[in-house]
Amino acid sequence: MPDLSSLRHKVGTALTGFLDAKDHAAPGTELLYLTTTLRGLLSGGKRLRSLLCVYGWQAAGSTGDVTAAIRAAASLELFQVFALVHDDVMDDSDVRRGQPSAHRALAAAYTDSGGPRGRAEAHGLGAAVLLGDLALVWSDELLHTVGVTPDRLAQVLPLVAEMRSEVMYGQLLDLQTTGRLTGDVDTALHVIRYKTAKYTVERPLHIGAALAGAAPPVLDACTAFGIPLGEAFQLRDDLLGVFGDPAKTGKPVLDDLREGKATVLMALAVQRASPAELSTLRGLVGRSDLTEEQAADIRAILDSTGARQTVEKMITTRRNAAFAALDEAPFPAAAADGLRQIARAATARHA
Amino acid sequence: MPDLSSLRHKVGTALTGFLDAKDHAAPGTELLYLTTTLRGLLSGGKRLRSLLCVYGWQAAGSTGDVTAAIRAAASLELFQVFALVHDDVMDDSDVRRGQPSAHRALAAAYTDSGGPRGRAEAHGLGAAVLLGDLALVWSDELLHTVGVTPDRLAQVLPLVAEMRSEVMYGQLLDLQTTGRLTGDVDTALHVIRYKTAKYTVERPLHIGAALAGAAPPVLDACTAFGIPLGEAFQLRDDLLGVFGDPAKTGKPVLDDLREGKATVLMALAVQRASPAELSTLRGLVGRSDLTEEQAADIRAILDSTGARQTVEKMITTRRNAAFAALDEAPFPAAAADGLRQIARAATARHA
Repeated sequence: MPDLSSLRHKVGTALTGFLDAKDHAAPGTELLYLTTTLRGLLSGGKRLRSLLCVYGWQAAGSTGDVTAAIRAAASLELFQVFALVHDDVMDDSDVRRGQPSAHRALAAAYTDSGGPRGRAEAHGLGAAVLLGDLALVWSDELLHTVGVTPDRLAQVLPLVAEMRSEVMYGQLLDLQTTGRLTGDVDTALHVIRYKTAKYTVERPLHIGAALAGAAPPVLDACTAFGIPLGEAFQLRDDLLGVFGDPAKTGKPVLDDLREGKATVLMALAVQRASPAELSTLRGLVGRSDLTEEQAADIRAILDSTGARQTVEKMITTRRNAAFAALDEAPFPAAAADGLRQIARAATARHA
Repeated sequence: MPDLSSLRHKVGTALTGFLDAKDHAAPGTELLYLTTTLRGLLSGGKRLRSLLCVYGWQAAGSTGDVTAAIRAAASLELFQVFALVHDDVMDDSDVRRGQPSAHRALAAAYTDSGGPRGRAEAHGLGAAVLLGDLALVWSDELLHTVGVTPDRLAQVLPLVAEMRSEVMYGQLLDLQTTGRLTGDVDTALHVIRYKTAKYTVERPLHIGAALAGAAPPVLDACTAFGIPLGEAFQLRDDLLGVFGDPAKTGKPVLDDLREGKATVLMALAVQRASPAELSTLRGLVGRSDLTEEQAADIRAILDSTGARQTVEKMITTRRNAAFAALDEAPFPAAAADGLRQIARAATARHA
């Protein structure tokens, strides 16, 4: 089993090799326009799904050549870039991973190449939709060529199909709830289960495990660990989205509040707010021109209502449930140790 | 081999069955919001790719149970809806198949359900991107479950991967050339080769043939027939996009001119235009507020330069090349006859 930094490096090498082959095989040079942006997006990121995929493979008892798991992990990174690029289009976000979001970068590239300024925004949007589409179909192609037998691949594909339907269902819920301020904590939890817990944690583990031919008890243990950890991960993300340091997260700290993301954090605050506080929230959350001062007023309410502290407790509860699931899991010790490390890092992170 | 209308019906049934299962399996009713729109989009269309897929299967000598080819055909229809929905987002088109385009329909559904009017357009766009994504991953899922062995499926998947990369490459070229008026006929032909000839004709034939375990000579013959036919199909489409009857095509007849689509038709006109005509084209093509009178001025130039007649000749040349390829092809007579019918209809159509 390679250590973490060597594993990250191997995933990066698999991605670079795949994109090099694509650039090389293209009938012209036009594709570079998209692959250059794609390479930039792929160079960032925590590689969390990659690590989970490889640990899933190891959790199923595999110890041999890790190449297929690495390639599957790289495929998940491509899928994640697809999801981010389209998510930024949907949310009209300016920044991703500390850099301009894909549609902004592609709009700028268009005017730089002499395209009329008046069409730049529309062009950037169209090109970003296309870039996301390409990342999605290429993630598939990389997965289909990881180097396992067709029979083994046939065991993996249904899990990938589940993952993809789930994250899109989560995105749909997100889209439908964003901008409508409510105290509905259950719905907010339902959204993060699909948008994050299954997509970011459970399914990468499942896919790695299935690549190694895992039996049902191993897949079940991945679920028992993955769902609470994934929920904790997203709850931490929601806190960072409001209280985090943009220099560390690479995302502007006002985006979630300006969009009016229907987080658990916000739902708890709405439930508990005094009439005056509720009126402040209603007036400010979701304003696209929200100022830093107004954001500070919202943060004060998230604190005074105890919503922030409750979310911290929810994270701890879920992290502990994930640890407990690991203690019961039929995983080799090395895999369980690695997953314990990830659980610690993912729930206590600052970025 | 079922006749054409029964074949269309079987493809429709496969699609309905698949979506019913998706609606049924969803954790909530939210998904209906997207699947209802998706069903509407899937109910239209000529089913050209479906027919080609099933004829490809038959061209490879298959005569037995056609179920797998029908399911693969249905998967191509889902893929096509993905492509249309994202294409309409990229072009900001209002109408598709005679109905509001997906992003317009979803924006209207949002305000109908009480969503704030100011967010409707952004919501419609986001929901349409997501709807396209869902159609894409579901097309994959349907393909993976057509009911052939993993080994046979492994022969089909690389062709599907090629098809998807090719159509996206074509879309990229389209995006880069739209709005820039040039006399570059070669580039315009290059775009339609990727955007249409390979995607709409060659690859559906290949996929059907590969499902039946076709040998290389059969695949080569599909290419020899498919590329010229596909080019002729798109050239006809370009003529209909400017001279067609919107009541028959289901697309507003000013869209291509307003977007400034870089068609072969327009490139020929630019090459041959007098200075006065060229100045008229430069002033009008690509204007988003183009009037019917201004469009008539453009059409007059497409006629007076002989561009329209040249495109008609190019269609005839390519249709004849497709017929000649069929005469040489190692296909059973029934498949060749069916393909001959399709070639006739696709190049002489009014919609």
